[in-house]
Formats: sequence, C-alpha cells, structure tokens
Amino acid sequence: MFTRNSVKAAPVVISQLTLRRGTPIGAIVVNAGNANACTGVQGFRDALRMCSTAGDALDLDPAQLLVCSTGVIGRPMPMDRVLPGIVRAAGLDDATGEGAARAIMTTDTRPKSAGAAFDHNGTRYTVGGIAKGAGMVHPDMATLLAFVTTDAPVGPRHLQPLLTRVADDTFNCVTVDGDTSTNDSLILLANGAAGGPVFEEGSRGLELLEAAVYDVCLSLSEQLVADAEGAQRYFRIDVDGAVDAQQARIAARTVAASPLVKAAVHGADPNWGRIVSALGRSGATFTLDRCRIDIGGITVLEGGAPAECDLGAVRRALSQPRVDIAVRLGAGDASGHAWGCELTPEYVHINADYTT
Amino acid sequence: MFTRNSVKAAPVVISQLTLRRGTPIGAIVVNAGNANACTGVQGFRDALRMCSTAGDALDLDPAQLLVCSTGVIGRPMPMDRVLPGIVRAAGLDDATGEGAARAIMTTDTRPKSAGAAFDHNGTRYTVGGIAKGAGMVHPDMATLLAFVTTDAPVGPRHLQPLLTRVADDTFNCVTVDGDTSTNDSLILLANGAAGGPVFEEGSRGLELLEAAVYDVCLSLSEQLVADAEGAQRYFRIDVDGAVDAQQARIAARTVAASPLVKAAVHGADPNWGRIVSALGRSGATFTLDRCRIDIGGITVLEGGAPAECDLGAVRRALSQPRVDIAVRLGAGDASGHAWGCELTPEYVHINADYTT
Repeated sequence: MFTRNSVKAAPVVISQLTLRRGTPIGAIVVNAGNANACTGVQGFRDALRMCSTAGDALDLDPAQLLVCSTGVIGRPMPMDRVLPGIVRAAGLDDATGEGAARAIMTTDTRPKSAGAAFDHNGTRYTVGGIAKGAGMVHPDMATLLAFVTTDAPVGPRHLQPLLTRVADDTFNCVTVDGDTSTNDSLILLANGAAGGPVFEEGSRGLELLEAAVYDVCLSLSEQLVADAEGAQRYFRIDVDGAVDAQQARIAARTVAASPLVKAAVHGADPNWGRIVSALGRSGATFTLDRCRIDIGGITVLEGGAPAECDLGAVRRALSQPRVDIAVRLGAGDASGHAWGCELTPEYVHINADYTT
Repeated sequence: MFTRNSVKAAPVVISQLTLRRGTPIGAIVVNAGNANACTGVQGFRDALRMCSTAGDALDLDPAQLLVCSTGVIGRPMPMDRVLPGIVRAAGLDDATGEGAARAIMTTDTRPKSAGAAFDHNGTRYTVGGIAKGAGMVHPDMATLLAFVTTDAPVGPRHLQPLLTRVADDTFNCVTVDGDTSTNDSLILLANGAAGGPVFEEGSRGLELLEAAVYDVCLSLSEQLVADAEGAQRYFRIDVDGAVDAQQARIAARTVAASPLVKAAVHGADPNWGRIVSALGRSGATFTLDRCRIDIGGITVLEGGAPAECDLGAVRRALSQPRVDIAVRLGAGDASGHAWGCELTPEYVHINADYTT
C-alpha cells in the first residue's frame, strides 16, 4: 500500500511499477534523510540505481527489489553516500531488525517494532514489523514507512486484501498533523519459510495470519502516534451511533486532527466544546441533543447540554500519557475510531526549521 | 451568513429564525467571552432574553434584534452580568464604532475595522465594518463575527447574493487553524439613510456598493489573518492554471491550512516540498511536471524538479510580515486564492489553556 498523495516520490512510483511485474520480492532498500521526491528525472534514475546496486550486492534481479525513501522533499539524493551504504548494509547479518528500525528513523525519538506468532496445524508462524512515523502523518493511506514480514505460506492474491483491511483499522486511523506524505509505503512480505501447506481462501490459517498482522500493525500504529513529533501524549477516539462506518470514521478523524482539540489535550484543558465543534464540521449526521461525549470515562456532554461532572477529574484524565475519548452520536449503529496526539510548541519548533 | 458547522450556537439559531420573519433589523446585540453554544434549552432562553432586553432598551421589537456570541463553548451564560451590560450599552452614543470593535475581541490583540465610500448620482454612500477573529477560523462560511453596515438604499433581496459573492472571495478564503466555529456570523445591514432612489437589480449603484463591501471585507479578512492567534506573519497563496475555480480554491486552502507549511513559514524555512505535498493531497488535478511554485516572486519548483534559486533570498521573502506564494498548476485556466498564517508555539500556548 502506498501514499494516496497525487505527488508521489520517485521510489514510490518505482516500487509500484515493480510490484505490477509480479516478480517475487527479495529485499527492500530504504534510506532516511532524503525523500527523493520532486527531484525530476534524476530522482527516478537514483531510485533505480538504488535497486540495481542492492540487487548486485544481494545477488537479486533489480525487479526483486522495492525501494523506499523518507526525509526532506526536493533535494537531490546524495548518491555518493547512498550507494556505498547499500553495499555495506547488504553485508550485515540477519539479526539486525532493531538496527533497521533505528536506521529508518527521521524525527522519531525511538525505534518501533512489533511481533506476533500463532500455531496452525502443528507449525509456528511468525509476523514481525518495523515502522517510522513522526510527522506528515495522516490517514490517506498508510502514513509512514512500515515493513511487515511473515514466514507463513501465503500468496499476494490473499495478502493484498488482508493488508487493506488491517491498514484501514490501524495505520489509516492515525493522524499526527493532517498532512499526507509523498512517500508513505506499507509493505507486507511473506516467504513461506516456516513451511506447511499454502493458506487458501477462507482457511483458518489465513484468519490467524490476519489477526497476527493486525496485532503487529496495531502496535506499530500506537507506537507511532505515541512518538509523534513533539508529543508526549496521545489519544484514542471511539465514535459509535453513527449512520454508517464511513461517517463514524470521518467524525473520529476530524476530532483527532483538530488543532484546537490537540492543543486542549496538550494543556489537559477540559474544553470539550472543541470536540463538539469538530464533530459539527465533520460532515457526520447527528443532532446535538442525542450526542454524548465521555473523556476518560467521565461524561461531559449529554442531551445537548453540559453534564454535571468533576472538571478536575476530566483534567486528570487528560493528563495521562494516553487519553480515551468516547463519542455517541445517537444517529445509527456504526462505529469507528482514530488516534491523534497533542499539539505542542515542540512540534512547531521541529517543523519550523526542518530543512536547515 | 452563518456558520456551516452543524452544531450551531443558540444565538445563531435565534438570529437565523429572526431573519426568516423578514422584520427589518434595528440592532445587533453581541457579547464576547461566552459562546452560548451547547448550553441546552437555557441557552436559547438566554439568547432570546438578550434580544428582548436590548429591544426594551432601544424601543425595538425583539424580532428586530439579531444576537451573536463568541467565546468558550459549553458554559452557561452569566446573565446577571450580560443583562445590565446590554442596558448600559444601549445608552452609549453613536460614535462608538471603535469601542464596539474592541468589545467583541476575544484572543484578538487589536480591534479590526474598515470603511469605504463611493459617490453615485450625486450622493455619497458609506460602508463600514468591524470584525473579530483570532482562532477557530476556517472558510466554511464566514469564520468569526463580522458586522458591516451601509447607508445605501438597497433591499435584502439584493444584499444576500452580494454578500455571498463577497464572502466567497474574502472571509471564506481565510484559514487560521482549520476549525470552524459554532458561532460564525457575518451580518450586512443597510438603512438607506444617505437617501437617493433604491438600488435596483443590475444598477450601477449596486455594482459600486458591491465593490465597497468587497473592499471592507477584504481589509477585515487581511486584518484577521494578520492577527491570528499567536501569529505575526501571514501569507497569501494564489493558485492559477486549475481545472476549475473549485479546484483552485481547494488547492489554495489546503496549502494555507497545512500545519507543516504554516510551521515552515514560521521558521522562514524555504521547505517548498511541503507546499507540493499539500497540493498533492488537496484533490486538485495536476501533474508535477507542469507545476510551478514561486515564493515571494522567486521560482523554487518548475517542471517537476527544484529550480535553480537563491534559497537565502527565499528565506528573506519568508521573513516578511506578509508572504506571497504563487502556484501554477498547469492543468487549466481557473484561479483562486487563500490566506493563511504561521503556526507558532504561542498558538499552542493560547489554546492549551483557553478555558482555565
């Protein structure tokens, strides 16, 4: 899955074309620090050269390589440093998941990785993932770079819809700043190394795999929003009682992306009026007199009017590293969720002086 | 014109109902500090009582009063202070435009007013306006409170479409933080006091009036974005070469609202990749290789690749109080514009602790 931004970085375009050829993928070559986006024809040459250099070093066809970049937009790739780095990286041993998670960081303050396992027909299968996020993160596809691998025996025909479903409820529910990157890539690879018969459509194996991929992506999503640029606090908003799932999702995302809600969370300010205001402009259908809002389990709005509540307790709930907000729209039966993070002066500092 | 937020404050609902009755309006009663939004049935009682109290004091029918509120959402109105204030305000003399502009401020740092005049058939006509803005400002109707009056002789049938056209190019092009208030109200009143024959459809008088109202609303819009919460710097973005006016507008607004663009403007960081990225997620149709971006008259992107330019000069352009950004999409002939402002640590501070 790749960014939905119509301006796609060169490595995104190259990886999409490579996948369309259907050659089994053998490796992903990734750099951080430069996005290789808006770099003209030279950018495409550089992305292709990253694939061929990695292919040579790993004894793979260039069409077996995916390529990802993350960092500043509009600067030529420093290929004199990138190419020797690829050759060196190709010589590393297998036990470098943590090192890879660290190498793809930009403004992340810590590496992000997650794993899950399940047993099926006497075989143990594993799913592992790493991700980087931090800024320019919004749910219009996949936000960020994330790489998930499994040793389960499953073909691309089943992996693609599985990943779409999982991403819709995990990575696509995370917003840091409402800006969608030109480089977002979420890649799921399976090599079948654990053995056993191939997981077929509707099989128990496929179900168990989806649950494990979900667990890994859920963990990576939460690690991501918890380590958003400048943020020490994140929140999850659950919306129910919406007319349909699409409206529930839009309502949750609008609240999660609202600068005023995010600033209030930063100040632990029990200013729930901003949640209502964001719901009101989200486009979701509801009437205020059936709407209810809970912050940290405390009802603050009910029946169109402020609920009797202890605002000091709401403030304490808002002071936790993770805040839970529940909204009942009272318009239907559908539900949805989103994660957001506080807006801080540090976010502004980080992004006021990013390239220089 | 009123907010498009589906959650409307009690005074907005009351004013909309009043206007539907068609009674000529004699006065507007306004308070700042409390939005009277999400205040249940009591909020409607309070808004009506503000109208009747002002009506009694001014010898007007309550149906001749419009009512507006701005401030914190979800708190009961302090009517013990509001009602005596209305009676006192009704006793003020006519020369209090500046005082009124100051009285409606919330987090504004300075009052905003503008005037324009024109001559028609030997008579001089005047348009005057005051506004407040600062935060929770986004172009989904009118953003803010703004009151514009004229002594020209013109009926509501002509004023309404005139105001819609003007607002679409002025107030509706301003974004501070992407949040739409529950209380936005833009009111244009005409009393014909300057005399002369009534301005009819298609008349020169109506044209001149529209130009004068446009000048007043343009000035108020720019004052508003220049005094946005925490901001000392604002920018205007002009998009041309769009497929249609709607796409031009969406492209301009998406860039103006992007937190990453706003943070880069704050840091005078010539990080134009964020402008491209925002254009790419705006939904406007274009291809990168026909796109051109100028900052302060300096071309930074052309033909899908970075332009040769002096980034130091771009940085100096971004250090001015007003920054001009021009985008040519190369997809059609339509144009549009928007105003945005820098995102600053002060914006976060102001909004982290707004209610408390």
